[in-house]
Amino acid sequence: MIEVTRELARFAVQFPAGDVPVAARHETTRAFMHWIGCALGGCRQDAIARALDAVRPFFGPAQASLLGRTERADALHAALLNGMSSNVLGFNDTHLDTVIHPTECVAAALLALAEWRPVDGAAFLHALAIGIEVECRIGRAIYPDHYEAGWHITGTAGIFGAAAAAGRLLGLDEQRMAWALGIAATQAAGLRDTFGTMSKCLNPGRAAQNGLAAACLARAGFTSSECALEAPRGFAHVLSTKQDFGAITGGLGERFEIMQNTYKPYPSGIVIHPSIEACLRLHDAHRIDSGRITRVALRVHPLVLELTGRRDPGNTLEAKLSVFHSAAAALMFGKLAEREYADPVVRDPALIRLRDRIEAAPDAEVAKDEAHATVWIDGAEPCSVHVEHATGSRTRPMSDGDLERKFRGLADAVLTPCEITTLIDKCWTLATLADAGGIARAAVPAAA
Amino acid sequence: MIEVTRELARFAVQFPAGDVPVAARHETTRAFMHWIGCALGGCRQDAIARALDAVRPFFGPAQASLLGRTERADALHAALLNGMSSNVLGFNDTHLDTVIHPTECVAAALLALAEWRPVDGAAFLHALAIGIEVECRIGRAIYPDHYEAGWHITGTAGIFGAAAAAGRLLGLDEQRMAWALGIAATQAAGLRDTFGTMSKCLNPGRAAQNGLAAACLARAGFTSSECALEAPRGFAHVLSTKQDFGAITGGLGERFEIMQNTYKPYPSGIVIHPSIEACLRLHDAHRIDSGRITRVALRVHPLVLELTGRRDPGNTLEAKLSVFHSAAAALMFGKLAEREYADPVVRDPALIRLRDRIEAAPDAEVAKDEAHATVWIDGAEPCSVHVEHATGSRTRPMSDGDLERKFRGLADAVLTPCEITTLIDKCWTLATLADAGGIARAAVPAAA
Repeated sequence: MIEVTRELARFAVQFPAGDVPVAARHETTRAFMHWIGCALGGCRQDAIARALDAVRPFFGPAQASLLGRTERADALHAALLNGMSSNVLGFNDTHLDTVIHPTECVAAALLALAEWRPVDGAAFLHALAIGIEVECRIGRAIYPDHYEAGWHITGTAGIFGAAAAAGRLLGLDEQRMAWALGIAATQAAGLRDTFGTMSKCLNPGRAAQNGLAAACLARAGFTSSECALEAPRGFAHVLSTKQDFGAITGGLGERFEIMQNTYKPYPSGIVIHPSIEACLRLHDAHRIDSGRITRVALRVHPLVLELTGRRDPGNTLEAKLSVFHSAAAALMFGKLAEREYADPVVRDPALIRLRDRIEAAPDAEVAKDEAHATVWIDGAEPCSVHVEHATGSRTRPMSDGDLERKFRGLADAVLTPCEITTLIDKCWTLATLADAGGIARAAVPAAA
Repeated sequence: MIEVTRELARFAVQFPAGDVPVAARHETTRAFMHWIGCALGGCRQDAIARALDAVRPFFGPAQASLLGRTERADALHAALLNGMSSNVLGFNDTHLDTVIHPTECVAAALLALAEWRPVDGAAFLHALAIGIEVECRIGRAIYPDHYEAGWHITGTAGIFGAAAAAGRLLGLDEQRMAWALGIAATQAAGLRDTFGTMSKCLNPGRAAQNGLAAACLARAGFTSSECALEAPRGFAHVLSTKQDFGAITGGLGERFEIMQNTYKPYPSGIVIHPSIEACLRLHDAHRIDSGRITRVALRVHPLVLELTGRRDPGNTLEAKLSVFHSAAAALMFGKLAEREYADPVVRDPALIRLRDRIEAAPDAEVAKDEAHATVWIDGAEPCSVHVEHATGSRTRPMSDGDLERKFRGLADAVLTPCEITTLIDKCWTLATLADAGGIARAAVPAAA
């Protein structure tokens, strides 16, 4: 049998920064900036405030920042809370082949570590790339069985990424890196049963925290299984009915999983995005007064109605899984962020009137990233639009500019425009920074 | 479907202390004293020292004691490290029907909490009983499938016990207790693949820590699944192929699982214990000079050779799983504690000579807690002994005096005899103490 854990440990310890292709490095930088934005957008959610209340009495020395907040914490608790903040809106990046949000656990562990033990941006970026690679490959080995069984794969795979990335920064040798992966394996946890509750965001948070702890324990010589991934009673066999170990080792160091990463322009179910984009384009092209709309017809991939066919959403969470609310809000407001999914908007009579005028027809000829929309206004000739590939799809990824705009939208309740600009600049120049942890401190509001 | 989680939460919140039978309360007290002893015996092991090195930089306020050590930590880290110390020797109590060590996670979480938020001994003892009940019942619902699949059940079930016990002390209402169980479920982890490495003891340690955190999070209104045990994607379905929910709710509050608890007199595989006891009796009855033994014949349950038939152990861990080393050491030293399994003893030529003269025959007629032993000395008539039920078995439990002797043996490297006596007294009178946390402080060496 291939020594999968050993081989992955060797990669995590040895793979030279110079051998990561420029495109993969840039994609990792994009993912990191985007992750900071998501954490800023989420950091004031109720789930984060309550978690902070609960664990603050146990905080150790103020080693690291809580993104978007003025409290400081020990590195382990910072990893926990930043990981939670970045997940709570459900708006993070997605490695489509495994539905892992690949940056959450790894970046949360690494940034906390980098504040505690300063490191330059180049080393940080490389460790981040290593961690994401380890995590997504482990995810590939067990997806979809593992996810379908009920595991929240962002946490269960993410803890390995966090451990590998932190282990790389801590300079673990191959033996200790293998232990770090073993310590990660025996802490891997997180159930999809938590979806729809605050505990969902606890899964990547704990994975970040415990992955960082795994690296620290291994560094201190704390031993573990040395074949935790492939052992008969190891991670892959115990937590999955599928074990494709070739997906872990095949092309390791040649193909980079970060190149499969995608970003969501809207904070809702990804299958709705083509319809949203069609409605936004209609809004912008025709400066529609939504009160005069008499009918809207969507033609969409069948999954859209299967997953998000909810006609009558009653709150934010349900609205994010309703193509009808999403299309109505896009037509009414011409944009679609957290605010357009807020409870009062969901219950607004004018929005509900418009929502009820929307039809959606499933069409197997329509691709997942495609949608057709037609709108009728006061009996005039209908206007139509065809979105071939929605923004954020593999074919039409969000541009650097798109990501910046999304970042500003997420950060603007927390930081000043000037602070946001400084922070974005730091993120783009991560690879050249003398102190990567400075980014965390730049993501904290000055006036408190 | 029965609302299993809800019913268990209601029990954990409401069950009156006065309704726990006296025998169950006494057994819980015994389990607690015994747990303190195991933690004292384990607290200076290398695994604990290394873990402490790794996590000490993150310690918060000195809220709680580390048993047998002079460092103090925040309550979460104290739960982690005391849980680890109590597990590391593999010498703790066993709920035979589920092979859970029931006191480890629950007591570690609870004692740390009791130091942080002082509570009287009666409330402490009741919360401990509640936690052990919750944990063992959840274990019954999924054992043996869950354990055979590779899960370290002491941690995966233990986290629920820790959460329920801590939640009871924190005064959670039924809704929040259900969330606490949900938060526990989504953190449940721990693989048997770690057995034989330091990471084994991390499993109950993290379960204690994260179970305590689950109660604190729920108290702060952090939401979770409200049917985490029985949900289609809940704990029992995702982590086990067996789900016997009736084992959780049947006779709840009437039968107490703590009554099935057992204690090991020797720090080795439990199947060897009847053979050890036979050899100790031979040693004591005949004041054997082990150098003159020419032959030893054991007749044992077939599992003994299957699990512990190792003829040639090379170190402590292997010796603890060797009936031959164990029998030889019992005959040579007339006692069998950690020291008799130390590496130099395992490699001692005189011991090895004796070990090689031991035969062991499997016999399906011999019960698991039974053994026959015959010893030949210098060609004289052989001496035989028959152990019908080994000490520590269900039929012949360790007495309070046996437990005290074991406690002294475990504590004597850490505390003075006088400190030990004081601590034992405090443990026996737990139910009457004004401040349960005082026990933790009495388990710390004065001179450091």
